Amino acid sequence: MGREEEIKVSFEPSGRSVYVLPGTILLEAAARAGHVIETPCGGAGKCGKCTVRITAGQSDPTDAERAVLTERRLADGYRLACQSRVASPLTVEIPETSLFQSAQKILVRGPDDRLEVEPAARKLLLEMDPPAQGSGCSDVERLRQALGPVTLDLPVIRRLPQVLREGAFKVTATVVDNTVVDIAPGDTRGTCCGLAFDVGTTTLVGTLIDLADGVDLAVASAINPQTAFGDDVLARIKTCREEPDGLERLHSAVLEAVNAIAGEVARSAGVERHSICEAVFAGNTTMQQILCGIHPLALGEIPFIPAFRELLRTRASELGLDIHPGAAVSVLPQIGGFVGGDTVAGIVATRLDGFREPALLVDVGTNGEIVLAHGGRLAATSVAAGPAFEGARIVSGMRATSGAIEKVVVDGDIRLNVIGNARPAGICGTGLIDAVANLLALGVLDPTGRIRGPGEPDASLPAPIAERVVGHDGQYAFVLARAEESATGEPVRLYQRDIRELQLANAAIRAGIAVLLDAAGLEARDLGCVLLAGAFGNFIRRSSAVRVGMLPPIERHRIRFVGNTASFGAKRVLLSVNERDYASRVGRATRHVDLSLDPAFQSRFGECMAFPPP
Amino acid sequence: MGREEEIKVSFEPSGRSVYVLPGTILLEAAARAGHVIETPCGGAGKCGKCTVRITAGQSDPTDAERAVLTERRLADGYRLACQSRVASPLTVEIPETSLFQSAQKILVRGPDDRLEVEPAARKLLLEMDPPAQGSGCSDVERLRQALGPVTLDLPVIRRLPQVLREGAFKVTATVVDNTVVDIAPGDTRGTCCGLAFDVGTTTLVGTLIDLADGVDLAVASAINPQTAFGDDVLARIKTCREEPDGLERLHSAVLEAVNAIAGEVARSAGVERHSICEAVFAGNTTMQQILCGIHPLALGEIPFIPAFRELLRTRASELGLDIHPGAAVSVLPQIGGFVGGDTVAGIVATRLDGFREPALLVDVGTNGEIVLAHGGRLAATSVAAGPAFEGARIVSGMRATSGAIEKVVVDGDIRLNVIGNARPAGICGTGLIDAVANLLALGVLDPTGRIRGPGEPDASLPAPIAERVVGHDGQYAFVLARAEESATGEPVRLYQRDIRELQLANAAIRAGIAVLLDAAGLEARDLGCVLLAGAFGNFIRRSSAVRVGMLPPIERHRIRFVGNTASFGAKRVLLSVNERDYASRVGRATRHVDLSLDPAFQSRFGECMAFPPP
Repeated sequence: MGREEEIKVSFEPSGRSVYVLPGTILLEAAARAGHVIETPCGGAGKCGKCTVRITAGQSDPTDAERAVLTERRLADGYRLACQSRVASPLTVEIPETSLFQSAQKILVRGPDDRLEVEPAARKLLLEMDPPAQGSGCSDVERLRQALGPVTLDLPVIRRLPQVLREGAFKVTATVVDNTVVDIAPGDTRGTCCGLAFDVGTTTLVGTLIDLADGVDLAVASAINPQTAFGDDVLARIKTCREEPDGLERLHSAVLEAVNAIAGEVARSAGVERHSICEAVFAGNTTMQQILCGIHPLALGEIPFIPAFRELLRTRASELGLDIHPGAAVSVLPQIGGFVGGDTVAGIVATRLDGFREPALLVDVGTNGEIVLAHGGRLAATSVAAGPAFEGARIVSGMRATSGAIEKVVVDGDIRLNVIGNARPAGICGTGLIDAVANLLALGVLDPTGRIRGPGEPDASLPAPIAERVVGHDGQYAFVLARAEESATGEPVRLYQRDIRELQLANAAIRAGIAVLLDAAGLEARDLGCVLLAGAFGNFIRRSSAVRVGMLPPIERHRIRFVGNTASFGAKRVLLSVNERDYASRVGRATRHVDLSLDPAFQSRFGECMAFPPP
Repeated sequence: MGREEEIKVSFEPSGRSVYVLPGTILLEAAARAGHVIETPCGGAGKCGKCTVRITAGQSDPTDAERAVLTERRLADGYRLACQSRVASPLTVEIPETSLFQSAQKILVRGPDDRLEVEPAARKLLLEMDPPAQGSGCSDVERLRQALGPVTLDLPVIRRLPQVLREGAFKVTATVVDNTVVDIAPGDTRGTCCGLAFDVGTTTLVGTLIDLADGVDLAVASAINPQTAFGDDVLARIKTCREEPDGLERLHSAVLEAVNAIAGEVARSAGVERHSICEAVFAGNTTMQQILCGIHPLALGEIPFIPAFRELLRTRASELGLDIHPGAAVSVLPQIGGFVGGDTVAGIVATRLDGFREPALLVDVGTNGEIVLAHGGRLAATSVAAGPAFEGARIVSGMRATSGAIEKVVVDGDIRLNVIGNARPAGICGTGLIDAVANLLALGVLDPTGRIRGPGEPDASLPAPIAERVVGHDGQYAFVLARAEESATGEPVRLYQRDIRELQLANAAIRAGIAVLLDAAGLEARDLGCVLLAGAFGNFIRRSSAVRVGMLPPIERHRIRFVGNTASFGAKRVLLSVNERDYASRVGRATRHVDLSLDPAFQSRFGECMAFPPP
């Protein structure tokens, strides 16, 4: 899945852009760009609340859109974000009324979508008097008189005498916090920009941002080249532990990719890469440590100790990041061995601690990170959900890309939504959850997750569905697509073991949530909202997520998709020193709950293996 | 004059060593090592107060030593430091009673020779508990619990997880101030050492020092390779201004030489060069700036602005110094464009601000730096003395090396002391001053500096001396050594223009002193002492320096030689954070007096051109 397959979607009025797979719902594309769109009907295409307008590019209206929007509106480019899929490059205008207002109203620090712009990095034009005869003042002192008590690094002091005189004492200083990182003769203020990076286990996303106004100048993404060393963090840790140059190779690989992204966004925005004067990174603990060149060995052994927890601040040159060598680099705080900077970014992006009612942030992936906010307190944990949600270890599993079944509808028989409107080639995580939720509702599955045989008591199924249950190895399997319907000529089936994989993944997430709720003395019904983060294929159907027991039983409208909070949180930190302080504060304040050897978790995990009652 | 010509002299009980030219008086060798020896008779070899003992190596007793010391004492190796000359490698024991006690008694901060050892750099053994299950504490936090609120650089954090576990949580941390610069498993405390550098325009001296006890482990020196680009700082500044890569070449040249010295002292002390964890540099403003890679262009134009004044603190890796990459580097504060870190080191070495009576520190060289301390206030200036004191621009001038006339005695005729007991080849700065003082006393010179002809009224000279006055170009010259007596077969003469050169040099120093005294409302007689610093050939005869008017008329015993204060001040700063603070304080507190366009200086300079009355 290379970048070349992805399609650019730009949003107005924010100017942000993202690259997404063909077939991605606009709602998700918007969430990835940090725009949370209101979906009271749960993305069913019924309420029309998520209306957006396509101002450039094509998207054919769906039946649901034709039912909700007038011909006139459709002709003007209005579409439903929950229905419209990306097939070609688009520019999309999001009306203020479609944004997630209800959440905004309860945020502590202003609207979610309004960014505080008060960056640590700024370019300042200084006009000084040339030194007079008898002046005892050094060049450094002269600069400090103009700038206040700043710190100057040796590389800046080295250039100072020449730059001051070349510019006739009119110079532009680039200052990050109270450190002068660059100095140039004359007025070179121009664009002062920074980079926000989401360093995912699988995907790297870099956003170049104008620090004057917070506008995204360019976005680029790439597969994390470390995937060549293993799909998940444990494989990467193993490589570092077992191969003498493992860390060096993984570190170089990710750094090279990050530098390529930096070069690409600089090029596409038309700025000199050395004019980038700050960068912020968010990733899980392992990714952040390897990026920094810090050995992750202690993350691979009990008790899974991170090297650092507080926000790590260094220089681009020290890290090996090819932007301005003196640029300030922040790596977000880490909460625990498997709760990293991406989770802190999620808290920063969502203002989780500011909700009036208890709130959950759940980032579903191979590693599931869960944060509970309650009465201003934060607790975070992580669970090993396994790769089922990514489509791995499922016989017909695949990533959420063209050909993946991502939605299953029951109407007497089974109807499939396939990404890219292709023939089904397999099933992605969201499709799996949807399929299992439907099979539970139909009674094809019993509450323990067993596929019932054709003659069993509760299985009074419509004939077309009953015919899909087939014997396999003394158990049963369910045929989602017959051989003649599929893209491969092989049937797409759900096997008993696929159901078990999903049960394990669900149980891990659900038990994690349960332990956090238990510790806070809360029930699921006390939750004001559950925020779902991360690029979990396309969106999970919320009712299905509750039905299969991945999420606790709460009302559907309380479940929100918040998109790529790692990128968005990193961007907030880049744009504002207050946000950086806030990130440090929540990083420190969040209690880390280690479930790895917790008997309560084990017991909860066992309970959660069974599907919840309807 | 390469290092290979120099001879090592070691001192006990300090353990310090220096390399000196053959023929150097022990008194000077000791001063270079930071030992100021008492010489109440002014180095005349009469009082016996400067007795030292040679414990290894040979030095034949002189007549003066035979007159003062018993046969028994001579046989036991006792010598007079003011008489004994270095001809071969020596180890010299300095009895406590020979040290400059009178000055010690009036010092503010303890005896001059007793070093405060409280270095910023230290190695600490830490034994921590391994992290327990459920510990929320990161490796960085664990280290901070053991060390207090230290700063950790990325290179240290990178190694931390491995080092902690390799050492089973018993590790050795190298801390400079509150920054951890290195971390190693187990107990590797061993030797923690630092480097003190004197970066002279002509000579580089590096001393490797044990930071635990202040003992010198090794000393090495080298000619500053920048001399290839010009003898004085102005020539170096010109190279940087006029050649595009001039700064880069000068910077690399000195850095390479400094790194060679660092390697040499490490080798000779048997320590790993990367175990050197701190370095301090003292040099004049131009030398310090070029060492740091800071362009000296503003030092070559009015109003001669230094790039920085406060103590500059950086890292070895940033500077390009090949010791531990994280080692802390201090470059001493600068007072003005031509009053640099070597002057600050001089103040630190001598505690100039602590004298009860007004005190002068005079560093005589091509550039003369003068500091006046009075009532706790410090004022400093510099004057361009020209190269006469170095023997340059004098027809028969030479450096203070073998064959140089360095002392002239009158006893009916002229008798010469020549360095290395060789035939005279020329005259060095001290010899020039001595010769001119004698010629003034004899009446060969009139008070304006003119060489009188044979028939002139005041010139009632002994015949052998009168015969030495010879005509030359309508003026006269004085023959110090006849052709048949000299090493070259050419006569060694003092020409009228040589006298003028010395007058210019004298006048510059003397006028600088006068302006500082005037500004403080002082007369020369108010001075409690004049401290003469710097490697000014061998020692100037103090009475001669007063006679020729280089120094104001004060009693001879108030004039002290304080040796290489740049090295010694740098060492103090290396060894103690209090000394470093003190250096910063005196750097800030010293008022810089810029004489370059000062009419009072011009007028005083004119007055001082004439020799003072006898």
